Amino acid sequence: MKLTWEPLTLDLHVPFRVAHGASRQRFNLLIHLDEGVGEAPAVPYYGETPEGIITYLKSVPDLGDGMDLEAALARRPPGSLAARAALDGALHDLWGHRLGQPLYRLWGLNPEKIPPTSFTIGLDEPSVMAAQARSSGHPILKIKLGGPQDEQVLRAVREATTAVLRVDVNAGWSREQALLLLPLAQELGVELIEQPLAIEDFEGYLWLQQKKQALGLSIPIFADESVQNSRDVVRWAPVLDGVVVKTMKCGGLREALRTIHTARAFDLRVMLSCMVESSVGVTAAAHLAPLCDFVDLDGPLLITNDPFEGLKYEGARLRLPSGPGVGLKRIR
Amino acid sequence: MKLTWEPLTLDLHVPFRVAHGASRQRFNLLIHLDEGVGEAPAVPYYGETPEGIITYLKSVPDLGDGMDLEAALARRPPGSLAARAALDGALHDLWGHRLGQPLYRLWGLNPEKIPPTSFTIGLDEPSVMAAQARSSGHPILKIKLGGPQDEQVLRAVREATTAVLRVDVNAGWSREQALLLLPLAQELGVELIEQPLAIEDFEGYLWLQQKKQALGLSIPIFADESVQNSRDVVRWAPVLDGVVVKTMKCGGLREALRTIHTARAFDLRVMLSCMVESSVGVTAAAHLAPLCDFVDLDGPLLITNDPFEGLKYEGARLRLPSGPGVGLKRIR
Repeated sequence: MKLTWEPLTLDLHVPFRVAHGASRQRFNLLIHLDEGVGEAPAVPYYGETPEGIITYLKSVPDLGDGMDLEAALARRPPGSLAARAALDGALHDLWGHRLGQPLYRLWGLNPEKIPPTSFTIGLDEPSVMAAQARSSGHPILKIKLGGPQDEQVLRAVREATTAVLRVDVNAGWSREQALLLLPLAQELGVELIEQPLAIEDFEGYLWLQQKKQALGLSIPIFADESVQNSRDVVRWAPVLDGVVVKTMKCGGLREALRTIHTARAFDLRVMLSCMVESSVGVTAAAHLAPLCDFVDLDGPLLITNDPFEGLKYEGARLRLPSGPGVGLKRIR
Repeated sequence: MKLTWEPLTLDLHVPFRVAHGASRQRFNLLIHLDEGVGEAPAVPYYGETPEGIITYLKSVPDLGDGMDLEAALARRPPGSLAARAALDGALHDLWGHRLGQPLYRLWGLNPEKIPPTSFTIGLDEPSVMAAQARSSGHPILKIKLGGPQDEQVLRAVREATTAVLRVDVNAGWSREQALLLLPLAQELGVELIEQPLAIEDFEGYLWLQQKKQALGLSIPIFADESVQNSRDVVRWAPVLDGVVVKTMKCGGLREALRTIHTARAFDLRVMLSCMVESSVGVTAAAHLAPLCDFVDLDGPLLITNDPFEGLKYEGARLRLPSGPGVGLKRIR
């Protein structure tokens, strides 16, 4: 198989602010393996850079017969998770092309059964976030918290919309803040909280679950940054209600499936999410969405220059393409 | 889809003796879902009877579009695991036929990468078992233990052959026996021990692992009867080195894959095994074998009247058929 790559500079509609930074452009890479295509999202937060990804790609040996997916994936060197995920995506795309079937079909899944996606409201002033929530028209909103005015944001957004609300703290709360804001979130009907506490604070999550129980709270706590793959599920399951699965965190679709299966064995709920990625990475991930309870795949909506057509949005509803593999079509 | 079934009476070459009984015939059922076929092994030990399986099958609702495997499997009522496994097998076979691909291909696996299978020596007098081990010519033997002369059996079989030896106790040892026989097994080079202690004796397995560590023993302990599915893996992983996966225990190929994925997240080793089943059930399972470390799929070799051709044996080496689905061909 011939491996090539090209830069993929994504222009964002609005600067993307989260608890740990802001950005207006993203510098991802497109990976080609014969006719298969994958995306490597160079997420600064995870220490991924285009240079690092290219260095990794230069070290990739021949991946052998792409039909033996298991072996091809095992031949990827350790290193950049973004590059590993891109290779996994391109291999799956190629495999689906050769078999003449969309990925969802090759997993025995029904593309009609994808839960509706949330849309993200980035961290900002409470009034700005409330205005965005009001004007968005989206039925499910993911509210980024972790700033100094979280209580005001929560109240203002709740006031502004009847949409289903999810909260993503990106590890931005102390235990004390979590103890104050968790009951408020539940009172305001927030559906779930993602990554309230620091990434490595296992004891904090245990403490928070005990507090939840003592206070009679039921709001589910999901881990995103703390849980990257199936092995992390094993370690973290005792202190969680659910996990956020992203192909880039775990290294691709194959490990994402393993992570979902492992989470189910623990009776955990599963949210499928993405990085700032074009239709290439997000459409690939979306083929796994029928296996998940919650979906947060708004990546392509955040960018103005998506080079591919794939996943379609009908409001919050996702429509997978029916072409072979990931089902992508290059448009620029 | 049209669901039908027929009796499948399997005649055994030799009466099959294990720690908990003996049998000369098995009364399984063949399940047909359109052109898909599956096998329900009526294993007495698991409380499965042909009558119970038929009662279950009569309760099965329309399984919908077979291409939505996930939904079709979810429509199976709770109850008989043998029947659930047969429906899963028939659904996968049908799905593969419609996609025109063998199952291993639809899982991205390489049929050349199946570990060699063991061959079972049933529980008997030490001299009889030793003679069978000597004359079998098989390179990997699974020795059934759990009788009153286990030490003599182990020594006699070891004396009789240079084959790789695995031991399956079928829950037949007390803790005290395990403590005596585990060091002997390791001394004699036994590769692994299956299900030494009682099915529910979690504390016993914990105790045994502690003893192993204290005595500096490394012989891996696998669970078979104790671990039926992915949820059991979660509960039992802390006291195990590996698990034995069988489609009939967990209800089919789909859950077997989940069980393998969950076991891998715990860094457990995986053995793929079967019940007394014809080529129908065993060939289906064998498509998952490239994902496993150890294989114990000698079911078709134990019977004289296999109605299908599927998996081929070249000594201990397994050859999967390359036809679509499970790849079976009816021969009687």
